[in-house]
Amino acid sequence: MSGIAMPDWLAKRARLTPQRIGLEAGGEQYTFAQMHRNVAEVAALLAERGVGRGDRVALLLPNGTHFVWTVHALARLGAVSVPLNLRLAAPEMAAQIQEADVSLLVYHSSLAQRAADLAHATRVPILCVDKESTHAPPPTATPFELDRTHTIIFTSGTTGRPKGAMLTFGNHWWSAVGSVLNLGLREGDKWLACVPLFHVSGLSILMRSVIYGIPAVVHERFEPARVNAAIEYGGVTIVSVVSNMLARLLDERADRPYPPSFRCFLAGGGPVPEILLERCRELGVPVVQTYGLTETASQVVTLAPEDAFRKLGSAGKPLFPVEVRIALEGRDAEPGEAGEILVRGPNVMAGYYKRPEETARALRGGWLHTGDVGYLDDEGFLYVLDRRSDLIISGGENVYPAEVEAALASHPAVAEAAVIGREDADWGAVPVAFVKLRPGRVVTEDELARHCRELLAGYKVPREVRFVDELPRNASGKLVRSALREELSRDG
Amino acid sequence: MSGIAMPDWLAKRARLTPQRIGLEAGGEQYTFAQMHRNVAEVAALLAERGVGRGDRVALLLPNGTHFVWTVHALARLGAVSVPLNLRLAAPEMAAQIQEADVSLLVYHSSLAQRAADLAHATRVPILCVDKESTHAPPPTATPFELDRTHTIIFTSGTTGRPKGAMLTFGNHWWSAVGSVLNLGLREGDKWLACVPLFHVSGLSILMRSVIYGIPAVVHERFEPARVNAAIEYGGVTIVSVVSNMLARLLDERADRPYPPSFRCFLAGGGPVPEILLERCRELGVPVVQTYGLTETASQVVTLAPEDAFRKLGSAGKPLFPVEVRIALEGRDAEPGEAGEILVRGPNVMAGYYKRPEETARALRGGWLHTGDVGYLDDEGFLYVLDRRSDLIISGGENVYPAEVEAALASHPAVAEAAVIGREDADWGAVPVAFVKLRPGRVVTEDELARHCRELLAGYKVPREVRFVDELPRNASGKLVRSALREELSRDG
Repeated sequence: MSGIAMPDWLAKRARLTPQRIGLEAGGEQYTFAQMHRNVAEVAALLAERGVGRGDRVALLLPNGTHFVWTVHALARLGAVSVPLNLRLAAPEMAAQIQEADVSLLVYHSSLAQRAADLAHATRVPILCVDKESTHAPPPTATPFELDRTHTIIFTSGTTGRPKGAMLTFGNHWWSAVGSVLNLGLREGDKWLACVPLFHVSGLSILMRSVIYGIPAVVHERFEPARVNAAIEYGGVTIVSVVSNMLARLLDERADRPYPPSFRCFLAGGGPVPEILLERCRELGVPVVQTYGLTETASQVVTLAPEDAFRKLGSAGKPLFPVEVRIALEGRDAEPGEAGEILVRGPNVMAGYYKRPEETARALRGGWLHTGDVGYLDDEGFLYVLDRRSDLIISGGENVYPAEVEAALASHPAVAEAAVIGREDADWGAVPVAFVKLRPGRVVTEDELARHCRELLAGYKVPREVRFVDELPRNASGKLVRSALREELSRDG
Repeated sequence: MSGIAMPDWLAKRARLTPQRIGLEAGGEQYTFAQMHRNVAEVAALLAERGVGRGDRVALLLPNGTHFVWTVHALARLGAVSVPLNLRLAAPEMAAQIQEADVSLLVYHSSLAQRAADLAHATRVPILCVDKESTHAPPPTATPFELDRTHTIIFTSGTTGRPKGAMLTFGNHWWSAVGSVLNLGLREGDKWLACVPLFHVSGLSILMRSVIYGIPAVVHERFEPARVNAAIEYGGVTIVSVVSNMLARLLDERADRPYPPSFRCFLAGGGPVPEILLERCRELGVPVVQTYGLTETASQVVTLAPEDAFRKLGSAGKPLFPVEVRIALEGRDAEPGEAGEILVRGPNVMAGYYKRPEETARALRGGWLHTGDVGYLDDEGFLYVLDRRSDLIISGGENVYPAEVEAALASHPAVAEAAVIGREDADWGAVPVAFVKLRPGRVVTEDELARHCRELLAGYKVPREVRFVDELPRNASGKLVRSALREELSRDG
């Protein structure tokens, strides 16, 4: 990707279509020209605080205008956005801030206390982006070099140690291009972000907005009635969701059909259950299923609505610039044969920040080794069997058992712990823990949950803790999670 | 652009959407899967004839299926397509074949005599692509490296000596991406090529077809009734035209409106006259005007229909990945101030084949110096005042005076010659020659026209020859074309 530089996307967009609406958030509409002015102001404020090219700046910002201004302002300065998952516990955030060598934390006044706590814990300076301002002139927009890092987004991985996936300007660009070649682009398109902007699923909507020249509609949180109203009355044509959000949207609408202006739900975070697809079909609601990762700047494969039933359970086919292979014991798997999903393309991350070994393990010969298991059928449709074998996806958030196990094991009473997912009607899955205590120690389930809540995001805290005498291990001492799953399913 | 490789576009498209129609030509429809099989056969035939990576192959092919198969087959082999302008005279074609170091000439049986003559003149082997076949297995598709040359298209330039613009895979890719971000992409889009495929305006439609996954409809030649029928009954949504074609289409339709399914005419080759725009507006026909060059793999700027009247005479604003500057005496011109149009972006050619000096003159600091004169207004709209000061655009074809002057001067009776354009209702402009004879020599206008026809494409042959005693020259001996233009306009 080296060599290509483009004009600053928002600056360019503001020159091309200054009067078009680019953002709807907090009850206001902003044209691209207004966005550009607001971003210039935030860029001036950041520059005044010493932020420059290559600096990493953490974002402690809820979905809203200030997230948008800040992420574009940092791109304009050539600095790197490190969006923090607001659901994380303080120690998790602090670890990411330190891991990414963050030089400034930008926060919204509604999160002032958390920002102050983080400043105290990490010694990183903080800036309240919605209260402070400057009269300094805005720094000039510099070209976007596609091989430079735009964003670092943390993903915990199987080790439980968070790793910062470095997404370049080019990764975001090609992701947007791959998506438009798949979903098309119509006059009047309007994309709703009711998923978090700190996730790549939300962030990528902001990128598409400036690249395509369409409005991003940003909701602070997912409220089914508001999303449905935005589709029915607000002209929203595309909404990114995970499948449990989709179910709640149809419930709220009491299965009334959507207006013809509505184009589709883009549904990630695992296959949409057949019964839900059936409801959508009856209502004439197109659902485009997708499989993507933080490391691929969102979508890798998508399933067109016309294939949804013929290829039930499939995540679809790769986007035009993306390739998918299934690797099995050092060879390409045959159609129908399961193996590790490998992804190649210009949307694949540059690597993990300051983690050469983990980067080398993940990126081999240009192929991202996802750790996810799946197969391709004879028409090239991808079926994802298991997200990283032990990954638990709870309400669209990834829960890595190793991370929860480490939190449990840090309690003085715990000898060892194992965490697996249990199916859940509302959340898809929730974490359940099996804990072996140290000899002579006693602890309650509540106490362990409280301990976890201090260290982990709420959605990672085990919904149930089962105390056991021994964890099932194989001859070489490796945990046999399947035995735990069997035990769970036996007990219901 | 180095570093990025993509899967073979047609192979990828045939995997993604095998059953979609990708081509309509010669009364037949072809799915992408069928196209892929036909292309594989042609690739096998070419490989059998020794064509491999980097080889340059000339195309003596009319608009039709075999042009499509051949251009994709050469890309698949990593070879370079050199499409010949079928309107050129034999010596012009021979010069391009030699200039490009062509190793094989591929022709259609309808052009067998011309191919045989060229083989005789250039000693280049020839292959009849619609008659010959092979049972050899198709070569495997290799990745498309975006910085490799895909096409060499000749453009004569001001020197009259043809130069081969090297367009890379990346140039075509980014051109297609820039266009989709501007015009959008809808299910059901279908793009008609009634312009020559040997020009970048036609060729780029074939690239968009495989990249977007939409049908290209290829007409052998421009027939207004057929184009109108394809729009009305054939589902065509976009048609690339030059403005005199647009006028003939409206005439043929007797100003009946087009169906709502029709999206737009993409009109290149100079601004659309106001009176014609007015007719289009009354009929509700959207016209997207554009300015582009061979060297930029087609569109550079486009003018949206909603701006057509407000910005009458403008060619519009740059595509998203493209930048335009106006240079004047080594500085950027102010808004409204005319200067040379410079273009930068990933769609700009790699250079002229084996012409390092001319390449260095054209590409400076990443900016293509177009030689065209224009200005930007204060909203960033480009107005093209003059295509390379002396360029004559006749029916969408470029006529470079220097080339015609050289042909005239090669006649033994001619001492010197000057060629300028005269406005023409049908063609936009036609070439007119001013000729000074050698002392004591006599020649008729017909004889000079016949002489030119042997050397030049018909559209370059002067429509009128005026014999003069002296050509107007300034103190330094430079031809003063403006004096000739005044003389022409005086005489009407």
